[in-house]
Amino acid sequence: MNEAIQPGSSGPRRSRGDGERTRNAIVRAAAALVAVDGLESLSIASVAAAVGMSKSGLHAHFGSKTELQLATVAEAARIFAEEVVQPALAAPPGLAQLTAVCEAFFAYLERRTFPGGCFMASGALELGTRPGPVHELISEHQAQFGVLLRGFAAMALAQGELPGSEDPGRLAFELNGIILATDTNFVLHDDPAVLALARQIIRQRLRAAGAC
Amino acid sequence: MNEAIQPGSSGPRRSRGDGERTRNAIVRAAAALVAVDGLESLSIASVAAAVGMSKSGLHAHFGSKTELQLATVAEAARIFAEEVVQPALAAPPGLAQLTAVCEAFFAYLERRTFPGGCFMASGALELGTRPGPVHELISEHQAQFGVLLRGFAAMALAQGELPGSEDPGRLAFELNGIILATDTNFVLHDDPAVLALARQIIRQRLRAAGAC
Repeated sequence: MNEAIQPGSSGPRRSRGDGERTRNAIVRAAAALVAVDGLESLSIASVAAAVGMSKSGLHAHFGSKTELQLATVAEAARIFAEEVVQPALAAPPGLAQLTAVCEAFFAYLERRTFPGGCFMASGALELGTRPGPVHELISEHQAQFGVLLRGFAAMALAQGELPGSEDPGRLAFELNGIILATDTNFVLHDDPAVLALARQIIRQRLRAAGAC
Repeated sequence: MNEAIQPGSSGPRRSRGDGERTRNAIVRAAAALVAVDGLESLSIASVAAAVGMSKSGLHAHFGSKTELQLATVAEAARIFAEEVVQPALAAPPGLAQLTAVCEAFFAYLERRTFPGGCFMASGALELGTRPGPVHELISEHQAQFGVLLRGFAAMALAQGELPGSEDPGRLAFELNGIILATDTNFVLHDDPAVLALARQIIRQRLRAAGAC
């Protein structure tokens, strides 16, 4: 996913390393702004002000608002991959990965990586009525996460860790639902009890599945 | 909830009925705008343009952006109560109400009451980082819906329609999660298959609970 936030091929005058650092700083500032104000409010002007650059300086890195939005979503996807997907992939295949991906998501909420909760969940609902490349990118990310959960569930089923009556697609949807309910309730009520309840539900749901 | 959208006590010059009709038309237009652009983008100017009124005419009904946002959220809550809560309350108490509330939510998505999916779900994530009266109103609505689900589950448990190992709070959270995942996936992928899968999951989840 890193390729998406490499410097463009438009030949920056400074060294590649400098350009890359600047671009990364811009994208990080943009992601922080989006977490509070939403993707639609993002503008070249607001990001330029946040990083202390001129609008034309920022334009050298991002030609349009859409390009800036896409790079910001790609950065949020990179963070999600690092904080939620990687810890899950590091667990033993099957049920342990299902448990790990949920726990990694809760930990990512708990350390308030983004102030508004999961960047992708908010972006999905914000851009639901706005077709275009940014919507496509978020939609693809959401679909990939569904495929990941389904894959973990299918492996758990193949290993006999889930009863034959379980369906990987349905279980993935349910777990994604618990994740989204945790995000919404944590963001809304700012209460750690939400995370405790969510962890208990996951343990119960996956134990129940494994026990039958 | 209707009281929240009654005309103010500032003494409109026209009859109470006229003032009420105008106010209702304004709030409906505002809700439609919010469903596409979000609550933060709502302005006296954009709503005045949508209903073909002057800004000062609209100001006679709503003194501030916050007042307009609150009335719009109250209108969305009224619609949610009418389309999702009432059909559930009309079902026999217990498990049938749990099933009915989920089905009513799916039907409300299916007929695209709001173009961006569930108004309250979007609002919750949009306003997560913005404390204030609008956040409070959405947060209270979300909490009330949780209490409703929990009450249905507790009744089902008391009637022996759920196994003793079920916990009303946990089950309510899970069902709310399935509802949120359905909203997000339906909004993002605009695919009726999402609703079919969600209905299957609810049947399976509540049958599994009832069967043990």
